[in-house]
Amino acid sequence: MTDLSPTPFEPDDKDALDAQLRADIVAAIDDADRPFLVRAFRRLHPADGADLLEALSLEAFRQTVELLGDDLPPDVLIELRDTRREEAVDSLPDEALTMALEDLDSDDAALILDDIGDDRRERILTDLAPVDRAELERSLAYADETAGRLMQTEFVAVPEDWTVGDAIDYARGRGEDLPETFYDVYVIDPGHRLIGIVSLATLLRHPRDARLTSIMQDVLTDISPDTGQEDVAFQFHKYSLAAAPVTDAAGRMVGMITVDDMVDVLQEEHTSDLLALSNVTDTADSETVLGTVKARAPWLAVNLFTAFIASAIISLFGPALERLVALAILMPVVAALGGNAGSQGLAVTVRAIAERQLEGEAARRAIWREAAAGAINGFIFATGVAVVAYLWFRDSTLSLVLAAAMLATFIWAGLSGILVPLGLKKLGADPAVASSVFVLTLTDVMAFFSFLGLASLVLL
Amino acid sequence: MTDLSPTPFEPDDKDALDAQLRADIVAAIDDADRPFLVRAFRRLHPADGADLLEALSLEAFRQTVELLGDDLPPDVLIELRDTRREEAVDSLPDEALTMALEDLDSDDAALILDDIGDDRRERILTDLAPVDRAELERSLAYADETAGRLMQTEFVAVPEDWTVGDAIDYARGRGEDLPETFYDVYVIDPGHRLIGIVSLATLLRHPRDARLTSIMQDVLTDISPDTGQEDVAFQFHKYSLAAAPVTDAAGRMVGMITVDDMVDVLQEEHTSDLLALSNVTDTADSETVLGTVKARAPWLAVNLFTAFIASAIISLFGPALERLVALAILMPVVAALGGNAGSQGLAVTVRAIAERQLEGEAARRAIWREAAAGAINGFIFATGVAVVAYLWFRDSTLSLVLAAAMLATFIWAGLSGILVPLGLKKLGADPAVASSVFVLTLTDVMAFFSFLGLASLVLL
Repeated sequence: MTDLSPTPFEPDDKDALDAQLRADIVAAIDDADRPFLVRAFRRLHPADGADLLEALSLEAFRQTVELLGDDLPPDVLIELRDTRREEAVDSLPDEALTMALEDLDSDDAALILDDIGDDRRERILTDLAPVDRAELERSLAYADETAGRLMQTEFVAVPEDWTVGDAIDYARGRGEDLPETFYDVYVIDPGHRLIGIVSLATLLRHPRDARLTSIMQDVLTDISPDTGQEDVAFQFHKYSLAAAPVTDAAGRMVGMITVDDMVDVLQEEHTSDLLALSNVTDTADSETVLGTVKARAPWLAVNLFTAFIASAIISLFGPALERLVALAILMPVVAALGGNAGSQGLAVTVRAIAERQLEGEAARRAIWREAAAGAINGFIFATGVAVVAYLWFRDSTLSLVLAAAMLATFIWAGLSGILVPLGLKKLGADPAVASSVFVLTLTDVMAFFSFLGLASLVLL
Repeated sequence: MTDLSPTPFEPDDKDALDAQLRADIVAAIDDADRPFLVRAFRRLHPADGADLLEALSLEAFRQTVELLGDDLPPDVLIELRDTRREEAVDSLPDEALTMALEDLDSDDAALILDDIGDDRRERILTDLAPVDRAELERSLAYADETAGRLMQTEFVAVPEDWTVGDAIDYARGRGEDLPETFYDVYVIDPGHRLIGIVSLATLLRHPRDARLTSIMQDVLTDISPDTGQEDVAFQFHKYSLAAAPVTDAAGRMVGMITVDDMVDVLQEEHTSDLLALSNVTDTADSETVLGTVKARAPWLAVNLFTAFIASAIISLFGPALERLVALAILMPVVAALGGNAGSQGLAVTVRAIAERQLEGEAARRAIWREAAAGAINGFIFATGVAVVAYLWFRDSTLSLVLAAAMLATFIWAGLSGILVPLGLKKLGADPAVASSVFVLTLTDVMAFFSFLGLASLVLL
């Protein structure tokens, strides 16, 4: 059994130790050795404990959570990914959840409560102290993905007439009652309105008698409980923040958001962009076969419909296809390259919108750039396919028709790739969702219509 | 002209003020009103100053940078996005750059130096103080995208026998010499080896006579100057950090990385994943038409090649296509849906690899899940297309052939979507780059081959 006493930090031994500990824990899970597991999870950093649990199969994961019960450290729950956290919450008894809720910061407690069904939530909330309960209920009242949900109501706010020394003495006096992690002290007026921020580094740099109002900095952010999480993340990134205050309409401090939550938001937003562009619905239970099927079937159904639109276009030119089989052989080339060109522009546009680089004048410049780049790449690849097609079929008219269709499809693809997401954004929709289905349908229609249409006119 | 004196924070006025200030600055740029611009940029937060400059056309941007010269605050340079920063560095005189390098933290200074051509860099480095010069040259010696490049060599490290009071007195004594932003104090032994970390919040919570060694926390991260930036970002995310120490092979402190740099890295990695999956090369000059063309042409060229592979497969079945035009009409449906299914799996896999959720046993489970989900969705959509095709062409054998091809293509797509990125990763390549071209080619080949092949066998 591994020695669980504190070990000095030795970078080279760390991986070896981890591997050994992990192996011992897996063995303890197999043996249902509860005392060992309880000690092990207490020693591990919550993120490492969560990693270990996530590496287990769903079955072994549930068993371990049940075995640990209220000895599973609450912070481990928070570090689990959503699907696994929901599983764990389902497997834990009410008492374990109540204890976890009392122990956690308000934002983390709200995350757990959110995973619980209505009946059970009511029951558990009743068991909490009235103050905790009121605070959690307020937090849950904010919409999903807003600052209100992400913020913690534990923060350090001090009166405007205090000095550096007052603030340090206050922190020492409160000791463990202070939030575990904070980077700034918020200076408020008698009406609780936020008037400035003193970072802890600034606090340390100044003498005890320095007044906070003379060393505080302006509040750069503008975050209320209703501010969307994407907007919050944008402000954190822009101003390189470790924490930011949340204020109500009257400018009163109501909460604090820390950068670790923002890193989670960025990862979430990124995953959802990437999945949306690849036509996957973001679902909670992606770990099961059925969940995987459900996340993908809706967009495949849309694609089934759009694919038959393309087929309908092709069928308009049935006689041409019957007389010249080369058309059937070459038409996927136009569609594939056009679709690829459209997807390229789409990805660039979606990123630029997310980073707010396509506002006003910049959007007009980008549209022009996409059309021009489409025309230039269209010209290059129209020449390329025409040459290959000529070498293959030795038919110069066919090659010219192919080249013309390619050029038209590329310009069309360039414009679709930017106008579709910009249009969706203007309509208030997520520019990534559905964009790629639209763009590919538009380029397919253009590809088949222009190639087969021109061929029918010129060749037959 | 706008009043530039300090204003109290008034959330509701903030946007209006910004708009007015922005309009005044744009007017001052048109009038080349240097004194006004210098004052305005000094008052603005560097991130806001950079935003303002980025919103200008490339021409106006260059003019403004030249006009400001060495009065352009160095922090504004750092906040500019890469393409614009490179432009600005090109437009600024040597003296302005030398002053900026002296003013900035080492990681930011290295960023600027990196943008400068070799000759000019040599000249500017010669102008720097020997200490600054040596430090910057060491920083530039680390490979791109490593912790060595991201870290700053300014950090606060204190001896292990100090108390809380010693650390606070030291910080007060150093004052403005300390790094502007820091969140932790690093405790080192006489050999400069890192033995623990005291967060500023912990420092404040404890009495002056508390020994740092009794309140310090273990070092959770394992970052050396050679650690890749993706790995660094992963550790920040995992342990919810605001800062992390960088140590050499002997465990000695050599630098510190702050979370704002990690947020930049995450955004960068996101962009590069998304672009790679959409076949766009990440280039520096995406703001010009030519840059846009160059970022996309290479992958279009690869796609030109793979599209003709698909054409070659189709041409094998020329006689079948000549006799039954319905095959030409329906074949894009199999390819489109199969390609879509493959892209879905690919996106999910690329994200899971990035979040390190596909190691060991988990990868095997995921491969099985993709195959099973492919089979189930394949069955559903095979039925769907078969019904539509039957209603359209009233040919039950053709519908069955279509359904069989669809099912085969879906299972194949599911497996390609996960095995291609996992394989690329195993080969040490970026799992996002080239994946989508491979997957789409594999599904196209399967789609055309199975549909036209089966049709030739059964229908003709």
